[in-house]
Amino acid sequence: MSNTKVNPDLQRERDKCTFNVTELINLIDGGVQKTEERKKQEDMVLSEGIHIEDVPSEYLSHKEKYELAVKKACLLFKVIRKMQEEDNAGMENYRAVLGGKLGSAILQDGSPLTLHYVMFIPTLMGQASVEQQVHWIGRAFDLNIIGTYAQTELGHGTFIRGLETTATYDPSTKEFVLHSPTLTAYKWWPGGLAHTANYCIVMAQLYTKGQCHGIHPFIVQLRDEETHMPLKGIKIGEIGVKLGMNGTNNGFLGFDHVRIPREHMLMKNSKVLEDGTYVNSPSSKLAYGTMMFVRVVLVTDMCNYMAKAVTIAMRYSAVRRQSQPKPNEPEPQILDYLTQQHKLLIGVASVHAFRLNADWLWNMYNNVTAELDAGDLERLPELHALSCCLKAVSTADAAECVERCRLACGGHGYMLASNLPSTYGLTTAACTYEGENTVLLLQTARYLVKAWQQAAGGNALTPTVSYIATVNSGRRLPPWENTIEGIIKGFQRVAAGKIGLCVSNIEKRQNTGLSYEDAWNMTSVQLASASEAHCRAILLYTYYTETEKIVNTVSPALRQVLLQLVDLYVVYWALQRLGDLLRFTSISEKDIDELQRWYEDLLTKLRPNAVGLVDAFDIRDEILRSALGAYDGRVYERLMEAALRSPLNAEPVNSSFHKYLKPFMQGKL
Amino acid sequence: MSNTKVNPDLQRERDKCTFNVTELINLIDGGVQKTEERKKQEDMVLSEGIHIEDVPSEYLSHKEKYELAVKKACLLFKVIRKMQEEDNAGMENYRAVLGGKLGSAILQDGSPLTLHYVMFIPTLMGQASVEQQVHWIGRAFDLNIIGTYAQTELGHGTFIRGLETTATYDPSTKEFVLHSPTLTAYKWWPGGLAHTANYCIVMAQLYTKGQCHGIHPFIVQLRDEETHMPLKGIKIGEIGVKLGMNGTNNGFLGFDHVRIPREHMLMKNSKVLEDGTYVNSPSSKLAYGTMMFVRVVLVTDMCNYMAKAVTIAMRYSAVRRQSQPKPNEPEPQILDYLTQQHKLLIGVASVHAFRLNADWLWNMYNNVTAELDAGDLERLPELHALSCCLKAVSTADAAECVERCRLACGGHGYMLASNLPSTYGLTTAACTYEGENTVLLLQTARYLVKAWQQAAGGNALTPTVSYIATVNSGRRLPPWENTIEGIIKGFQRVAAGKIGLCVSNIEKRQNTGLSYEDAWNMTSVQLASASEAHCRAILLYTYYTETEKIVNTVSPALRQVLLQLVDLYVVYWALQRLGDLLRFTSISEKDIDELQRWYEDLLTKLRPNAVGLVDAFDIRDEILRSALGAYDGRVYERLMEAALRSPLNAEPVNSSFHKYLKPFMQGKL
Repeated sequence: MSNTKVNPDLQRERDKCTFNVTELINLIDGGVQKTEERKKQEDMVLSEGIHIEDVPSEYLSHKEKYELAVKKACLLFKVIRKMQEEDNAGMENYRAVLGGKLGSAILQDGSPLTLHYVMFIPTLMGQASVEQQVHWIGRAFDLNIIGTYAQTELGHGTFIRGLETTATYDPSTKEFVLHSPTLTAYKWWPGGLAHTANYCIVMAQLYTKGQCHGIHPFIVQLRDEETHMPLKGIKIGEIGVKLGMNGTNNGFLGFDHVRIPREHMLMKNSKVLEDGTYVNSPSSKLAYGTMMFVRVVLVTDMCNYMAKAVTIAMRYSAVRRQSQPKPNEPEPQILDYLTQQHKLLIGVASVHAFRLNADWLWNMYNNVTAELDAGDLERLPELHALSCCLKAVSTADAAECVERCRLACGGHGYMLASNLPSTYGLTTAACTYEGENTVLLLQTARYLVKAWQQAAGGNALTPTVSYIATVNSGRRLPPWENTIEGIIKGFQRVAAGKIGLCVSNIEKRQNTGLSYEDAWNMTSVQLASASEAHCRAILLYTYYTETEKIVNTVSPALRQVLLQLVDLYVVYWALQRLGDLLRFTSISEKDIDELQRWYEDLLTKLRPNAVGLVDAFDIRDEILRSALGAYDGRVYERLMEAALRSPLNAEPVNSSFHKYLKPFMQGKL
Repeated sequence: MSNTKVNPDLQRERDKCTFNVTELINLIDGGVQKTEERKKQEDMVLSEGIHIEDVPSEYLSHKEKYELAVKKACLLFKVIRKMQEEDNAGMENYRAVLGGKLGSAILQDGSPLTLHYVMFIPTLMGQASVEQQVHWIGRAFDLNIIGTYAQTELGHGTFIRGLETTATYDPSTKEFVLHSPTLTAYKWWPGGLAHTANYCIVMAQLYTKGQCHGIHPFIVQLRDEETHMPLKGIKIGEIGVKLGMNGTNNGFLGFDHVRIPREHMLMKNSKVLEDGTYVNSPSSKLAYGTMMFVRVVLVTDMCNYMAKAVTIAMRYSAVRRQSQPKPNEPEPQILDYLTQQHKLLIGVASVHAFRLNADWLWNMYNNVTAELDAGDLERLPELHALSCCLKAVSTADAAECVERCRLACGGHGYMLASNLPSTYGLTTAACTYEGENTVLLLQTARYLVKAWQQAAGGNALTPTVSYIATVNSGRRLPPWENTIEGIIKGFQRVAAGKIGLCVSNIEKRQNTGLSYEDAWNMTSVQLASASEAHCRAILLYTYYTETEKIVNTVSPALRQVLLQLVDLYVVYWALQRLGDLLRFTSISEKDIDELQRWYEDLLTKLRPNAVGLVDAFDIRDEILRSALGAYDGRVYERLMEAALRSPLNAEPVNSSFHKYLKPFMQGKL
């Protein structure tokens, strides 16, 4: 990146940064070589120029947006195909380009082909028999067919057992009959389903010999391969405009007695024999695997969105000047206001916290799936509980972080040219998809309540909940320690305390005659809160311990900054949760005073490195796509350039003046 | 509203409502007659059918959206003109139709004519001399000219003194020369400025005889009245797509030495004589009036947005069924989950709380402006402090409420057909415009710090801060009372405690050698929090006392529900702010346990009236514009109907298949 024409305020920030930004970039990427690979990949993809738009897509109509998204997606995957042929890298490149920052640079509003790679192919790999894989996967990889994955229905989302679509086996023809018995049975939401995919994996209630065997996957052809016309009995279309992701081509799909061959049921696990006999799967728990995988990946996505938003807001805050607290002095950079540092620096710390937690969860995921393959299911519930609450908390925190960054940019953050509204659209969507957050928190709560009861029964606990037994071992509260370790212990005590209260409140309600389910429901606001508290304790602990491992490998200057960020994150959350700490630990008013001062001092210490820290996220301008956040800080020039690209500005007088406004002003309308 | 074809779940909710919905509708409107008037007005405007769209506007391109907005705005104001001629009602009807729910039914994405009525005409009335009013106001009222109001610049928003546009008086020609010396001096944001208005009030730094006299208003012609072409030296256009409000036609405006006659400076207050002599205004404080007025009106707007969102989410939650907590029982309505009640019922209570606070603030505003007219400025700072924090807290709470409602609708809340995303767009915009919220909270904090110092000096305090002296009169904390009054007193103690801590922290920092300004900045995170705490105390107190006045005038059944809502609101906020209460009052763990149970019981008690309570907001389907929230609860049918209106669904195969997708799949792209 060249320093020519960089805004002088921003240059001054970079000049005073105390650590080596490249060192941190490499650390985040996972090494110098990884950074080089990433940059090479970015160069290759961006050099194609697919991301350059004649008219910025936000000015287009909904239909035009879709057409542009198809064009860009095809061109992007052409490049990826080429990259794959060149270095034979397999799925890895797909992942990097699709899920990562790079894909969203080109298809910032979502891609109609994403589900083909993220759900269609992986489901074939995970659920199709070997014969079926031979038949389908090659065609899917070569993009002779384009698929998607249809599970959610108009009337049913998170509760999968409630799905209504039926697949009834007809032994006389050896076919399944797919049918949507009601309007609410229509598939609704799948990306690429509306006008892009010609094949689809459909989750449906399997009926054979008059019996229902629950949800199973079927592969269904939707459209003619030549003409793309919907096949007979297939009722298909798009679901309409959304808050964001309008390039994803989300669709609906209804079946009117559509017949598919028996072989189109994916039969790696359960099977239906020719005569209609149902053969159960030996390992139905394995189906959880994909869902957990997606949730783990989501935590990393959230880091990318937060990093984008905080980069934009931080650079803008270094350039923007406002107000005049001291007479005869120039207006300060808004980054000099403590309230602004408060809004933004926690965002930087959150990116690091969630990044290290995502890595840690990823390792655990790999260990547990390796154990699964060896037939050991023991740690599956723990992983499930963790992936649920980390998905819920990371998406909620990320959405709040992005929105706080947007609001911290004042009115200009409301402009799409800032790229903050679209980033929020992508982030907040994740609060709902892959499991609604409250539902997920309550799933973790079930695990925590069980763990509590195990501990009460004197049983050993799995590692991530072992603190429940530890903190409850003494009768009296230990003295409060105003240190990072002390705060983390405090958060564990809070989580344990809240779980304990929930258990006792459920019992009390059962004692008044309520069923367990009703007692659970009446306590569910507290249960969700206990689950969140557990997740906070995990987040703080993991961020702290993983950073402690890293800091010995880096330069002293970087080490100092990384530890300051951990301190900031932990102290910030202590101040956010004073009520919990006051209830469940022995923290005193004097401790709180000290924490507040500690926090304010940390903001002041991190202030000189604020821009360096976001530069270290190393998000190229083409990927950031923000008039406010570009590396050169030419905020106002870029806002004006963006405005001048509006098609409305192509003519000095809009036709509506002659058609409506003038007659109206003359009283002739 | 007819009950035919109403979703049976929703009908069952209405059947079990314990109070008379019409009674509450009338209470909210301000009486039976007011309800009738409102309905008549709604009928008149909606019967014109302007709100009916061939293609829903969200599918249009940005340019087409603007053209539709101009058409609709012209037709809407034609109706209003007719209404005015018929019953001679003056500005009242403009307000009702424009600011209220009705205007946004027709122009849900903002109107390019709003600023003409809300800012251009009022500024002429407030700041133009009598002669100038004679010249301009008639033309403005008759819409021979269309105006807007340009204050904010690309580089300057909330800090008005920093504006850069200059108006330099030239006595030789008796003209002002308007000029934008820099890019950041460009006016940026004014609604209707881009392609709609032909006149504009411009706020600029006044220079005469070589001296700057600060910001003054000037009326400037922007476009030729016949051709609508921009005049010489006027650089004008639109600023581009935004998160919402894309019908408002926000514009930019630069001046290249544009000359206007001396008489175009608005001279009700300050003046420039022919020879260039500047004559100062005797009452520059009066300029605050309009700003405060707008902030007061904003609080009411926020009630409308929250009422919309909570109506949509509540009705949807009565229709939507999910999960199966008890085997062999049907899936419950999601409204039966305590977590869902927790998300939504607080929204209902918030609407009532902010509505009563808005009325109370409105009365105070009228009293203070009457005192002002009589030359008494004493309560102006108090009103200013109140309007700042209430604007900040009401917009922040409303945005959070709308977003919580949207997320409570799961994936379907992400669809524009729910109308929740657009409602959020309108609500969150208010967090920034008319004063950025953090800046406003800190303005209130200045007043609170002064009040604290007055109290410390033994001086009397104005009514809304008098609690600062009261709660500090005793040395020891009084015992906690677990009642509504006790909690409200607790919140006053929290606010006073936080203000006191801020004062002492500022002093401590000054004692270490920091300037007052730097000490203030270092304490500003705490100051903003103290200001918010003050506002919470006001909100709770006013909601409680104003409701107490009302409940004696209503039926016992309604009285019970209204009091339950107050209880819910107060207990909810106590639970949200346990940390503060634990720090500054003598609340105990047992009290907290009771509060939690009290809260859960209140949710259960209010549950049967949940739908009745939102029905009482009486928002017609045409105004609600939501597939999820319509009165009949035909959620899924309406979602499908909305989807089928997408232009993408007009053709079974989109042209992009032949153009890109097929060649791509065949490897020929």
